[in-house]
Amino acid sequence: MSVAFIHPHALVETDAVGEGTRIWAFCHVLRGAVIGRDCNLGDHAFVEGDVRIGDGCVIKNGVSIWDGVTLEDRVFVGPNAAFTNDLIPRARVRRPGFEKTVIREGASIGANATLVCPLVVGRYALIGAGAVVTRDVPDFGLVVGNPARLIGHVCRCGERLILADGRAVCPCGHRYIRKEADQIQETA
Amino acid sequence: MSVAFIHPHALVETDAVGEGTRIWAFCHVLRGAVIGRDCNLGDHAFVEGDVRIGDGCVIKNGVSIWDGVTLEDRVFVGPNAAFTNDLIPRARVRRPGFEKTVIREGASIGANATLVCPLVVGRYALIGAGAVVTRDVPDFGLVVGNPARLIGHVCRCGERLILADGRAVCPCGHRYIRKEADQIQETA
Amino acid sequence: MSVAFIHPHALVETDAVGEGTRIWAFCHVLRGAVIGRDCNLGDHAFVEGDVRIGDGCVIKNGVSIWDGVTLEDRVFVGPNAAFTNDLIPRARVRRPGFEKTVIREGASIGANATLVCPLVVGRYALIGAGAVVTRDVPDFGLVVGNPARLIGHVCRCGERLILADGRAVCPCGHRYIRKEADQIQETA
Repeated sequence: MSVAFIHPHALVETDAVGEGTRIWAFCHVLRGAVIGRDCNLGDHAFVEGDVRIGDGCVIKNGVSIWDGVTLEDRVFVGPNAAFTNDLIPRARVRRPGFEKTVIREGASIGANATLVCPLVVGRYALIGAGAVVTRDVPDFGLVVGNPARLIGHVCRCGERLILADGRAVCPCGHRYIRKEADQIQETA
Repeated sequence: MSVAFIHPHALVETDAVGEGTRIWAFCHVLRGAVIGRDCNLGDHAFVEGDVRIGDGCVIKNGVSIWDGVTLEDRVFVGPNAAFTNDLIPRARVRRPGFEKTVIREGASIGANATLVCPLVVGRYALIGAGAVVTRDVPDFGLVVGNPARLIGHVCRCGERLILADGRAVCPCGHRYIRKEADQIQETA
Repeated sequence: MSVAFIHPHALVETDAVGEGTRIWAFCHVLRGAVIGRDCNLGDHAFVEGDVRIGDGCVIKNGVSIWDGVTLEDRVFVGPNAAFTNDLIPRARVRRPGFEKTVIREGASIGANATLVCPLVVGRYALIGAGAVVTRDVPDFGLVVGNPARLIGHVCRCGERLILADGRAVCPCGHRYIRKEADQIQETA
């Protein structure tokens, strides 16, 4: 059985790290955090104590995951992407509770992207590098820019989908159908 | 009397850290820096030697404060926000002196924001997450985007102000009056 | 002979670090990386193993240089700038090889800029702070914004060039001539 790998220069204060997970140098994970199996936390990542990270997530260097943020399974977070948990931050003003951010299964957050709370990023959505996301992103949605706008949809595999008559077939085999304006779903 | 808390994995080379200040893991503060009371420096923050940070400031993870940058009291700096002190950086070219950036009392800098020197951010201004600020921001100004544009004003408490006939009253009780085009001030 | 300076709190796993290079606290350089002479790697920088960095480069705090990225001589990379090596990142999906990013001699990357692979940034180009670069930048090109657009050209020294009749003379003495639409070159 493979256990977690924790680099000797990481600080991991929780016991809840799944097997196969690797936590690299100068990372800091606070007591209380729950991290799934087969994750990878790059150098200089940080995880606060009231955070749950699913299985198979990849968190690249320089990313901080604050209380109020949840990553479901197989989420990718690019280097230096920034989460938030307070929409109107003021020094020395502590608001009750935190705004929530949920990144659903399989979604990818590009490098240097910024996620403005509260926010839900849908399943397998793709947030472009450098995007500043200020509202919810639908499942399979592709958003870019500042502020981020929806410019299309991507497959589970990440490839851009081309919808014709409300349907798309990805070369990888997955099929999709439009539900309503900005929403698509997988189909048989 | 509470003294400063310095995490055992932080490197603090200055003696000028005010009481009640907390400096977290993998932070590095260079000799000469002056940090006020009751500040909080998150993991992986960095403070160069010719920097003055006021009382009650919050500097989140991954922020570097360079020579030439001054933070007055109760400034909030979000995660991975970036300061600059050279408008035309070239490797191996050292210019005489540094461009100055001043963040006035109570201002907030959002996550991943970029501050292009020289720059003054006014009192209680709010820089949106991911904004790229290329010119001065007035007191209580709210700016967003790349490049950042002024889209309104906020109260001392952070709430958006709605001006009518050049006046605004925040639900929290503070009152403001317009001085000139982009400038407002508190009033009785 | 000056040898490299490696801060006692840095982790350097390669032997290929040129003399005069300085690597600061909480940096991590993996085995296999090749770093030239007289470079400066700021705190919390990270260099993967299949990376080549030329002579005289400056890499500021919080920058990660991934496999597939090459920096030629005298490249400047501002704080928290982010590189990429996978255009469609998905957790737990490893693609064969990496997309390439090449930053040519003397180019400067501003603070918090994002470099979307694959990409070539030309010699002495200047990437504005916070820019999100999604396509190649010509030699001496100046780009800003999200997505980054070419707004002009700069001299080797970094100063903005003013072309008249397809020619420019910088106050520093260097001369340039337009080759084609977006391309300029040095001339005698």
